[in-house]
Amino acid sequence: MQEDRNKILVDSIRRLLRRDAVSHLKKIVNKTHAADLSIIFRSLSLHNQHKLFHMIEDTEQQGILLNELDEIAFPDFVEDLDIDNIVAILEQMPKDDVADLIVRFPKEKADTILEKMNQEGSDEVEGLLGYKKDTAGGIMVPDFIALSEDTTAKEAIESLQKEHQDVEMPFYLYVLNDQKKLLGVISLRQLVVVPPQTPLKNFMTSDIFYVTTDTDQEEVAKLVARYDILAVPVVDDKNRLVGIVTVDDVIDIFRMEATEDILKMAGLGEQFTETQSIFKSTKTRLPWLFASCMGGILALFIIKHFESSLSESIFLAPFIPVIMGMGGNIGTQSSTIVVRGIATGRYDFKDLRKVVSKELAIGSILGIIYGCMIASVAQLQYDTILLSISVSTAVFTSMSVAAFIGSMCPMIFTRMNIDPAVATGPFVTSIIDIVSIFCYFKITTLLIGI
Amino acid sequence: MQEDRNKILVDSIRRLLRRDAVSHLKKIVNKTHAADLSIIFRSLSLHNQHKLFHMIEDTEQQGILLNELDEIAFPDFVEDLDIDNIVAILEQMPKDDVADLIVRFPKEKADTILEKMNQEGSDEVEGLLGYKKDTAGGIMVPDFIALSEDTTAKEAIESLQKEHQDVEMPFYLYVLNDQKKLLGVISLRQLVVVPPQTPLKNFMTSDIFYVTTDTDQEEVAKLVARYDILAVPVVDDKNRLVGIVTVDDVIDIFRMEATEDILKMAGLGEQFTETQSIFKSTKTRLPWLFASCMGGILALFIIKHFESSLSESIFLAPFIPVIMGMGGNIGTQSSTIVVRGIATGRYDFKDLRKVVSKELAIGSILGIIYGCMIASVAQLQYDTILLSISVSTAVFTSMSVAAFIGSMCPMIFTRMNIDPAVATGPFVTSIIDIVSIFCYFKITTLLIGI
Repeated sequence: MQEDRNKILVDSIRRLLRRDAVSHLKKIVNKTHAADLSIIFRSLSLHNQHKLFHMIEDTEQQGILLNELDEIAFPDFVEDLDIDNIVAILEQMPKDDVADLIVRFPKEKADTILEKMNQEGSDEVEGLLGYKKDTAGGIMVPDFIALSEDTTAKEAIESLQKEHQDVEMPFYLYVLNDQKKLLGVISLRQLVVVPPQTPLKNFMTSDIFYVTTDTDQEEVAKLVARYDILAVPVVDDKNRLVGIVTVDDVIDIFRMEATEDILKMAGLGEQFTETQSIFKSTKTRLPWLFASCMGGILALFIIKHFESSLSESIFLAPFIPVIMGMGGNIGTQSSTIVVRGIATGRYDFKDLRKVVSKELAIGSILGIIYGCMIASVAQLQYDTILLSISVSTAVFTSMSVAAFIGSMCPMIFTRMNIDPAVATGPFVTSIIDIVSIFCYFKITTLLIGI
Repeated sequence: MQEDRNKILVDSIRRLLRRDAVSHLKKIVNKTHAADLSIIFRSLSLHNQHKLFHMIEDTEQQGILLNELDEIAFPDFVEDLDIDNIVAILEQMPKDDVADLIVRFPKEKADTILEKMNQEGSDEVEGLLGYKKDTAGGIMVPDFIALSEDTTAKEAIESLQKEHQDVEMPFYLYVLNDQKKLLGVISLRQLVVVPPQTPLKNFMTSDIFYVTTDTDQEEVAKLVARYDILAVPVVDDKNRLVGIVTVDDVIDIFRMEATEDILKMAGLGEQFTETQSIFKSTKTRLPWLFASCMGGILALFIIKHFESSLSESIFLAPFIPVIMGMGGNIGTQSSTIVVRGIATGRYDFKDLRKVVSKELAIGSILGIIYGCMIASVAQLQYDTILLSISVSTAVFTSMSVAAFIGSMCPMIFTRMNIDPAVATGPFVTSIIDIVSIFCYFKITTLLIGI
């Protein structure tokens, strides 16, 4: 739906650009949300991008557009943009977005921009730049509505009418004391329903959730999701209110964290690599593949160790892939369940015994089922009862051990403060490969007696 | 942090329960958010759960708690709960939550509850039950603030003071015509800053985003995230406003969809299986493992086909795992990137050529690197130059083919309207296994001439 609409838009904008139909273009550009324009930009030449950009009348929309440009398009685009123009746009944007944007400029240009911005704005931005990127301080907006506890509802509404034009989430008002300490919160809704002369302290909610500037962004997001709130106040180490994190940023955090987790589980780094060069993507993937390569080489030595048995009973070789594959796959299932369970707060270390024994049970049942299935293939192909028994025992062992290791490792990694999403992939797979191969040959040499 | 706090809470609640310190317990229970209580409930006996539940004075908090109970705890808990009690709680809850909750009761009990609820409420709930679960209709709340376009700002504020007490997102007011068609939206913020006598039509935003009752919930969520709005209006097929979807539900949708995608990619079904029985979990995992078992058996036949060459050159066997493993792992990386890219809207079918050729390039580079590495192990171990060349060629082929297949398949599945997250896992792995094995033996027989 969304895609179709964008396609139609791209086509008509291109047609109008060819015909140089400026007034038509202006109408379309100013009617389209900047978030949509940013997608269309991808399919346009740099020249046309600039042409359209300058047709946008609302500087706020220009800011949103700038913010949505990806890391490939952004540097080229801003290179030709006038500094005063950039400053004018940035002054209209929420300060947290400015802080995100400013670090994408070359250092020198960024400094010039900050110098040219009005004092108050650039101080706020530089303040934000001091916080770590993935903490509450790094994602908060320093614009909020703060009032004293003796303010009346009527005065509060009047102050809304006079100032606070550029506050991002104007639905909560925060009540502070003289030291800027947070005393309570009031929703705009409450404000309009109480008698006008009521002082804020009489109806503010004083039992409020807040975070500190160094709270991890994932913690912040979980808090907002858990209590269904629209914004959470951020206080500094002296308990003074310094900003708020709004729900729209929380959505972005959850989406980003989910993507990160998925990528990490496949050894693809933390950042989406769409916009990365081939060289950089290759580099990101190298270590994970290296770990599994080491696992494969270890498996190589194990098979080599049993080479003489193998050459006597060549019929053992064809079963290597299926035994390793079944172990590897169920191991991935078990570790995925546990990694995601930990990420969403369903599991923690104290559930270790419960989780691992359940996975072990599932692994064993599936091991019996697939052990029998693969043994019947063996029986049909080779008609050697001892081989069939060996194969089924090996499948069973491999699958139950894999489920055990796959569920155990992420738990232990978490306990050791190692991110389970990063560690489990190649680690679990390699261990399982090695264990599977070793058990297979050990079992066959014992049973068949080669 | 959160976990520690909960642990302390559980411990003190347990201690107080043992001492039967009712007044103490009451104080704690009424000070704790119901979302936190639900976690504590997991570690308490049914008897104690009821005891605490009845200590909660705020029916709204009781409702939140009920809603947070998982599918194991819920049936037991509500079994002993008085119907009138349930009805009283449900009447305080947002209607979308009631609709979600009511389907968790046994059919008969649900009917009795709906009968006993006040007419208006139960009509609304039954209306919601008519929509499919994962559409805008299924997740919307039917409570919103609707006014006519000639209402003045002052009248609007007065109506807020008189009614609309139980509206979930009281920050937007919707302007409707006589046929209940949506004309525009006003934020509470706008309402308090305009002169009191201004009619709504003079300052409402009439160019608004909306969805229809059958819009997929993921589409709704993307819309809210894209335009940073707090609630999106839902209209029926006659364009009448019937509900709104609020941002807190959008957060839940994103988290759920991410979990679903992760689980599907590992063949674990769509639902988190923590609360499922061992038998049910086993059943969910069977088909995915079956697909990879079939792949393994095919690989078995391929190796068997080359059995005579293999018995002559037994040194070929130890390389089977590492060649298959490297192909499998890079294939997983490529398909993960593409599946997640599609899910987050970064890729669509028109990017096919670009995406696949990039992955192919990365696969080839990595194939050369690891081909050389594994060939040097071969050379050191067997000192046969032709074997080393065969092995490196096989690794290179396997890895580039894997990257190609891994990136191609999810694209094609999407085009065919098959969910790529479900399909790629076992499908891609099996194809890659088979291709790798076949190429390996084909290359060695050609090069070494066995």
